Amino acid sequence: MIFSSVTTPTLIINEEICRSHIQQMSEKAKVSGVLFRPHFKTHVSHDIGLWFRDVGVKAITVSSVSMAEYFALNGWEDITIAFPFNPLDLERVKNLACNTILNVLISGKKVAEFISQKIDFPINVFVEVDTGYKRSGISDKNTEEIIEVIQLLLNNNFLKVKGILSHFGNSYSHKADEVPDLWNQSISRLQSVKKSLSGFGDFIISVGDTPCCTLVKNFKGVDEVRPGNFVFYDVMQAYSGICSYKDIAVAVACPVVDLHPERSEFVIHGGAVHFSKEFVLEANGEKNYGLICTQTQNGWSLPVSEVYIKSLSQEHGIVKASNDFIRNLNIGDLVFVLPIHSCLTVQCYNSYLTLYGKTLDHM
Amino acid sequence: MIFSSVTTPTLIINEEICRSHIQQMSEKAKVSGVLFRPHFKTHVSHDIGLWFRDVGVKAITVSSVSMAEYFALNGWEDITIAFPFNPLDLERVKNLACNTILNVLISGKKVAEFISQKIDFPINVFVEVDTGYKRSGISDKNTEEIIEVIQLLLNNNFLKVKGILSHFGNSYSHKADEVPDLWNQSISRLQSVKKSLSGFGDFIISVGDTPCCTLVKNFKGVDEVRPGNFVFYDVMQAYSGICSYKDIAVAVACPVVDLHPERSEFVIHGGAVHFSKEFVLEANGEKNYGLICTQTQNGWSLPVSEVYIKSLSQEHGIVKASNDFIRNLNIGDLVFVLPIHSCLTVQCYNSYLTLYGKTLDHM
Repeated sequence: MIFSSVTTPTLIINEEICRSHIQQMSEKAKVSGVLFRPHFKTHVSHDIGLWFRDVGVKAITVSSVSMAEYFALNGWEDITIAFPFNPLDLERVKNLACNTILNVLISGKKVAEFISQKIDFPINVFVEVDTGYKRSGISDKNTEEIIEVIQLLLNNNFLKVKGILSHFGNSYSHKADEVPDLWNQSISRLQSVKKSLSGFGDFIISVGDTPCCTLVKNFKGVDEVRPGNFVFYDVMQAYSGICSYKDIAVAVACPVVDLHPERSEFVIHGGAVHFSKEFVLEANGEKNYGLICTQTQNGWSLPVSEVYIKSLSQEHGIVKASNDFIRNLNIGDLVFVLPIHSCLTVQCYNSYLTLYGKTLDHM
Repeated sequence: MIFSSVTTPTLIINEEICRSHIQQMSEKAKVSGVLFRPHFKTHVSHDIGLWFRDVGVKAITVSSVSMAEYFALNGWEDITIAFPFNPLDLERVKNLACNTILNVLISGKKVAEFISQKIDFPINVFVEVDTGYKRSGISDKNTEEIIEVIQLLLNNNFLKVKGILSHFGNSYSHKADEVPDLWNQSISRLQSVKKSLSGFGDFIISVGDTPCCTLVKNFKGVDEVRPGNFVFYDVMQAYSGICSYKDIAVAVACPVVDLHPERSEFVIHGGAVHFSKEFVLEANGEKNYGLICTQTQNGWSLPVSEVYIKSLSQEHGIVKASNDFIRNLNIGDLVFVLPIHSCLTVQCYNSYLTLYGKTLDHM
């Protein structure tokens, strides 16, 4: 049994589930006739990247220059850095752009001015448009600034303006049945922007967030999609109705280290440095930092009802559980924790362990 | 200027502040006649460990076997692993115990049974007593189990029972003026336990949490103290009145990447993977994931009033600020973020940068 080697919190991955998500999302993009440019910020792994290559993926998205460098090293040749262009990164971006098709994000007029003056090498640019998430980018209502930015960018012949890019991150705070409406509304806003830019060139629309990309029937109205979290999903996505528990492709195996039936709790080695401090709220108002599954012959079970991590220190996790559940536990047993937000949990590890005992890299 | 090399989120340390905390805590322990056994889980750095050696520290505390291995490699010879002993770690603990004075924590009867049967090498043990935090260990009220555990441990001649150990972690949820009372109450509970064990040997009392160790006048009533967070402090400690902002010894330098005066916000490169998702609540009910300071000639300023990170994605931080503040910012400027919980923020980095441009290691 591969888990016999596990003595400390260990990130476990179910390759079948993961490959099935990749296959399905790739197929959906193909049927819709759009480019599938998956976001690699969730897994940040060369080995998992290969599973995308297996379904024909050639273009990817990342969220930092460091990640772009990591994947360029592994032979990825078409990379979008979906994060506002940072002038301090100019030299590193230049190095990257020499060896890959690099696409960067212009999120406002000041950066457009900088980049239109400073860039002396070929690079592709997207203008980041905000359709309501209110993180970065220019509001879709501010077509004046979007046009100014496009004009600035077109002034520099090294720059190829590819189109407009948006992240509908507000979908993460919506319930599943509201997500398709949010998608339709956001897409229609981007199409208005595109229309107002029609005098300047033929631009594409790039979008991508897991809730929308999972729930909409097809990707009509856009040119490329960039979902990331779907590769693993997590408890947040399950709580919002975006996925089921059986879709969650990663879990953290944690040793049980202390039992407290007198307060209906037990303690695991598994703390804030192993999961992140992301939580969901339970109906009783308590914070839930992770759902607990048990070990099965082939991996982990579905989460056990009403058993969850109620508090975290740096290395300790306090799990709330029924006394029936605790009675069957021994010190040194492993439990499997489904992550609240897989993108953050996975960043706590240098590697993944598959159910076949193989180690996969993590940046 | 050393910050000219900073282009991405970078952990900065003020060595003077840090050394001054170490000096003061060491002095307080010396005056009280107790052993100063600092917790190294906060900094997890060989280089910072040397600053403790400079004030005569020879014995340390860590929170995992991995950390114990890390510091043993660097020549630390007396290490307490202040985390419930995990039977799965037996082999690694044995290896460590061959080369160092190793002290481990027994948190309940089942582990005491295991260890009294399995240990065939010399090792020191503490019994973990819980005076009200309700994390791990045996309640001070359950003297029956504590005595049973002591008896089990005394059965094995390889084990040297050193005493009782407690972490008053509940001090972190108290305001400064309540902390000394909590200390007195907890110490008196431990002394009762010690009294009930007087027939079994001469045991020491080991305690240690930053709020208590900072605020009590002296350490009368205990034999050793193990504070950790005091080496850096953080916003949580400042909000609770345990320290001042000027005591915070680490900050994350982050580039400004997008400006949104229209919604009184700006965006930094600095997200959940650079700070952790720990937050404090502001009076208006908003979450605060980090306070913002500006760059000064010698480091960073005090935090700017009412400027704080209101939300975090993986790589983005959205900062709430007055338009006056935003007006003076440029894309590519650095701001300095004081961490909410330094123990967690620091774990996001592989190194520290000092104000003199020197790089310090992090595990």
